[in-house]
Amino acid sequence: MPTSVDRSTVSARTVFFVSDGTGITAETFGHSVLTQFDLRFKQIRLPFIDTLDKAHDALRKINDAFAIDGQRPIVFSTLVKAELSDVVRLSKGMHMDLIQTFVEPLEQELGVKSTHTIGRSHTSTDSEEYKNRIEAINFSLAHDDGQSNKNLSGADVILVGVSRSGKTPTSLFLAMQYGIKAANYPLIPDDFEREKLPSGLVPYKSKIFGLSIAADRLAEIRNERLPGSKYAALENCRYEINEAEKLMRREGIRWMSSTTKSIEEIAATILQEIKSEQRPD
Amino acid sequence: MPTSVDRSTVSARTVFFVSDGTGITAETFGHSVLTQFDLRFKQIRLPFIDTLDKAHDALRKINDAFAIDGQRPIVFSTLVKAELSDVVRLSKGMHMDLIQTFVEPLEQELGVKSTHTIGRSHTSTDSEEYKNRIEAINFSLAHDDGQSNKNLSGADVILVGVSRSGKTPTSLFLAMQYGIKAANYPLIPDDFEREKLPSGLVPYKSKIFGLSIAADRLAEIRNERLPGSKYAALENCRYEINEAEKLMRREGIRWMSSTTKSIEEIAATILQEIKSEQRPD
Repeated sequence: MPTSVDRSTVSARTVFFVSDGTGITAETFGHSVLTQFDLRFKQIRLPFIDTLDKAHDALRKINDAFAIDGQRPIVFSTLVKAELSDVVRLSKGMHMDLIQTFVEPLEQELGVKSTHTIGRSHTSTDSEEYKNRIEAINFSLAHDDGQSNKNLSGADVILVGVSRSGKTPTSLFLAMQYGIKAANYPLIPDDFEREKLPSGLVPYKSKIFGLSIAADRLAEIRNERLPGSKYAALENCRYEINEAEKLMRREGIRWMSSTTKSIEEIAATILQEIKSEQRPD
Repeated sequence: MPTSVDRSTVSARTVFFVSDGTGITAETFGHSVLTQFDLRFKQIRLPFIDTLDKAHDALRKINDAFAIDGQRPIVFSTLVKAELSDVVRLSKGMHMDLIQTFVEPLEQELGVKSTHTIGRSHTSTDSEEYKNRIEAINFSLAHDDGQSNKNLSGADVILVGVSRSGKTPTSLFLAMQYGIKAANYPLIPDDFEREKLPSGLVPYKSKIFGLSIAADRLAEIRNERLPGSKYAALENCRYEINEAEKLMRREGIRWMSSTTKSIEEIAATILQEIKSEQRPD
């Protein structure tokens, strides 16, 4: 049967993300690269491969996939210890060693040997950076949706915008990824009638960053939450966005549109704004 | 003055993360590699380098750093378009091209050309995966700290544990990174007296995953929040943890200790548990 033969030749490649830690680096990176190919991949995470036994187990899984698929699996690995990566490299997969590929040239360039230690700065619970991130997450949660005016002076940034413009997930991402203390505050019809920022925000105007969004996209998002409500109606969305933008313009608040941007993109943009203020170049 | 000469020879290298998108991949990956060196680095993000003008601007910044530092900057780049990466490669920095290094061998292996398109699966707002992640974030927020019993049947996992054992940041990370709908539920003295799980959780026992923590670490964390309180007292922390572990043991709930684990590590561990259930191998 020709059809089934065709299907087998285009079956999805198996991709392994092998790491001595969480595997997040291998996976984030592997995704970036694989997205460049218009193909489907079957993806398998193998995190916490931190002993020889586990490395041999990983090797077996990769070889099993080869036997089943009839084509070489792709292996993205971030195994820091050479003895572990030496085991996995013996597999029948195509081995992309993210550490060795770059660590050796860097050793040359920097004139020092790498420490080959497992565990990344981002996930070491003792580091200042980690503590800042956890503190920022707690701060962002406590200051979500205008819940609290307390300690707003401690915020690195205060996001404002109409309900469902993307403030909450962006605040959490800023905290989690970058350790940025991000409060967020809704702009509501009361503010539009008074034609003023919520009074609690006035002292912190320089920290405010606005999010806007296209009315039809906002209506779509709000309709998922409260179908058929006035809140979700296109006309109302248009009104709120229009008023919010007028208010931000009048108050001299920077803003961006979240319509086609992911929370990662919004967060990275805001981060650039904050940093370039602190460190003009 | 010998001291100042010594200091200048060990001045921190400048590291650039150059990307056509958010730069998160370049930065996550670069951090993993740099952590292998016991050195300090001065880190500069250059995200959204998506035009020739911006690429030339990046090139200039790298060369400026070389002129100021007197040593080659390290450049981690994830520029997908060859014409952009060709510009940045002309810099005086040491160029680590994360895309080209792996995309070309992959083209060979897969027998297809890469699409060289900007924008990653993780941040494309149209993708199913992105929508799942946003939905999961909203779910996790709505089900933080036992706020709601509604729709618990939709949860992928329900984290339980005493107050400040790490449930909230772990839930949010699971949602944000993996699109896992993670509810979380505190175990409180009332539960210990009744020697039972909160009744709302009983139907979902198979989805429950517990977090425990060392008493002294918990006391430390709680003391930051409510210094000198009974809630934060070591004796009370010891009691609550002991009771929570007894309860989880009695109910047959899996748990892990969050004491020395980052939220990334806790989340990756839980993910493995969930996945291996769904897909036994």
